[in-house]
Amino acid sequence: MNINKNYKNLNESYLFSTIAKKVNEFAKQNPDKKIIRLGIGDVTLPLCPVVIEALHCAVDEMSKKETFKGYGPEQGYDFLKTAIQGYYKKNNVDVDSDEIFISDGAKSDLGNILDLFDVNNTCLVPDPVYPVYVDTNIMAGRKIVFIDANEENDFLPMPDISVSADLIYICSPNNPTGAVYNKEQLAKWVDYAVKNNSIILFDSAYESFIANDELPKSIYEIENAKKCAIEFCSLSKTAGFTGTRCGYTIVPKELTFDGMSLNKMWLRRQTTKFNGVPYIVQKGASAVFTEEGQKQIKENINYYRKNAKIISDTLDKLKIKYTGGKNSPYVWLKCPNNMNSWDFFDLLLTKIGVVGTPGAGFGKNGDNWFRLTSFNTNENTTEAMERFYQLFK
Amino acid sequence: MNINKNYKNLNESYLFSTIAKKVNEFAKQNPDKKIIRLGIGDVTLPLCPVVIEALHCAVDEMSKKETFKGYGPEQGYDFLKTAIQGYYKKNNVDVDSDEIFISDGAKSDLGNILDLFDVNNTCLVPDPVYPVYVDTNIMAGRKIVFIDANEENDFLPMPDISVSADLIYICSPNNPTGAVYNKEQLAKWVDYAVKNNSIILFDSAYESFIANDELPKSIYEIENAKKCAIEFCSLSKTAGFTGTRCGYTIVPKELTFDGMSLNKMWLRRQTTKFNGVPYIVQKGASAVFTEEGQKQIKENINYYRKNAKIISDTLDKLKIKYTGGKNSPYVWLKCPNNMNSWDFFDLLLTKIGVVGTPGAGFGKNGDNWFRLTSFNTNENTTEAMERFYQLFK
Repeated sequence: MNINKNYKNLNESYLFSTIAKKVNEFAKQNPDKKIIRLGIGDVTLPLCPVVIEALHCAVDEMSKKETFKGYGPEQGYDFLKTAIQGYYKKNNVDVDSDEIFISDGAKSDLGNILDLFDVNNTCLVPDPVYPVYVDTNIMAGRKIVFIDANEENDFLPMPDISVSADLIYICSPNNPTGAVYNKEQLAKWVDYAVKNNSIILFDSAYESFIANDELPKSIYEIENAKKCAIEFCSLSKTAGFTGTRCGYTIVPKELTFDGMSLNKMWLRRQTTKFNGVPYIVQKGASAVFTEEGQKQIKENINYYRKNAKIISDTLDKLKIKYTGGKNSPYVWLKCPNNMNSWDFFDLLLTKIGVVGTPGAGFGKNGDNWFRLTSFNTNENTTEAMERFYQLFK
Repeated sequence: MNINKNYKNLNESYLFSTIAKKVNEFAKQNPDKKIIRLGIGDVTLPLCPVVIEALHCAVDEMSKKETFKGYGPEQGYDFLKTAIQGYYKKNNVDVDSDEIFISDGAKSDLGNILDLFDVNNTCLVPDPVYPVYVDTNIMAGRKIVFIDANEENDFLPMPDISVSADLIYICSPNNPTGAVYNKEQLAKWVDYAVKNNSIILFDSAYESFIANDELPKSIYEIENAKKCAIEFCSLSKTAGFTGTRCGYTIVPKELTFDGMSLNKMWLRRQTTKFNGVPYIVQKGASAVFTEEGQKQIKENINYYRKNAKIISDTLDKLKIKYTGGKNSPYVWLKCPNNMNSWDFFDLLLTKIGVVGTPGAGFGKNGDNWFRLTSFNTNENTTEAMERFYQLFK
């Protein structure tokens, strides 16, 4: 028996364990200091009342023979697919019900979608990046080409026609940089992909944080995108589903390669290697898309947005360069005085007891950058940024 | 961009759509006839009261900031892993907590585990078989060798030392045949796997239907199994979780190949391509393993067992040969008068309005065999088997 040797090429990531270790040591030596965590990559507000109500109802349905649900369709129940279809329609995007696949989250589908593609394809990944894009391709033994996201291009790299790639990862609003592509920029990526017979894997997990109506929330707002793009979205950040697990993936029927429909291939993949999202969770998710649900999740998103504004206002006052914060829960700032991101991490922790995430953890272009997030409370965020201001003013 | 061409080698399965079409046509032509479905492969009784209560509590926790749960550990919460550890302990099997991985079901993990192995491995699959074992390997382009399960070996094939295989699929109690390996037989498979440096993928999804204490519920009841076997189990049939989605996979730390620990590889796979089972569902699942939970699920299992007995008693009276039924929700019978399984399907449907599943749908060795299941009501099962008796007496 031979193992998949590609796993030997994976680097261990010590990013979050190193952070935890440093924070614990500091806390031990300074038991009286209040540490504020602006490194949190997870939501902190509870599920909305309409979602809770829908979950309770669904649990009750599971308790009675007449309403009990066994195996559901692997690709998701129609009631949820219809709700998502309506959500896209509000952005003037038409998707067919059988182009929507309910998933247990964008991370699973972003990894599993690779099953559909030959291992000899090359994939194009921006640096810095969500590490999962890289690791899933290393596991499959696929060639990875990096494209620089940096200060010069505002962390929004554009296609280079001299580089050929088969699978292109785009995350907008971006994790970790918070940068968001506009329609003209995305249109250039779509053109590039169509010309090169490539597939764009579009991660829109943070779309609900887009406040500027001019910015695209879905790649399908761009002409011809259905000829080249698969979109992955999630309720994790939209509706606080990080521990409840529900997302959706759009695989357009126009995507046909070598006589095979990617939509049918994905359906076949999911019916063979997946058994669907729990009925209870799908009922909870569908409540998110009701009028009341949209209102309630917006309140939570606005709460986080307020934090992002507290962070970005402070950086504005200090004239520190950053991306994100306005249409994203993440603020990606340039470390003052050209510090490297780990030194900056140590400085913030030891001087003001504020924890963030060193940019170096997301790729070489993050070396002098730092990620702050908007998932703490308004009070803590205000206090952290007041300390930050005093340190750098 | 090149697609994964292995998908072109998949056969479309028309088994259940063909059955549905035939049944619908018959129902249309015979609107007055009561059709009884003994082909159901899904549970029909609702979730147990303790599970419902735990689900409601967990939903309430998600509604409050203080008890809200965001991202959990990808491999599952400790409270559930500890409960499963205790469950194994009752069968005198010791598993470490970090050998247990909570999953959204055996089907997902049985497919995804293949990520860990080289595509040039050969896998050994019994015929007849749960089609997922075959299709997931075709998708990966892996060579498949079939081993005959038939009347001669009571549908329990034993290893053939002249055949070499890297990945060995064993499902016991079996789907579709209901046959169960005893300890001596499983020990021979473990010996074979250890000698050949192979891995056994042991699907124990139906273990809770084993009534005979002498039969192994886990492959780890066999000496040396931890050196060669990964076990997949699920609450789907155990506790009616087919629509609630929770299972578990045991990857022993002893499994080391080419200097790599399969346990660590699987942890890396899951943390990269999976985000864990919903907190709510894990709370519901943990209630199954409480004393009261075990009592309540046993009541449901006994309800289904009663149906299996109604079916097997009728076959005994008619002297029709079968496997399963005693330690399994499935009864696998030899079609009377040497009929092929589709002709027998038509006969049962048109003469007595009873629906089952033709064995041919599970492989060539199922050509003259037929699957009946115990998931309908006691009343309907009694009526169906009374009609069956009248037809063949």
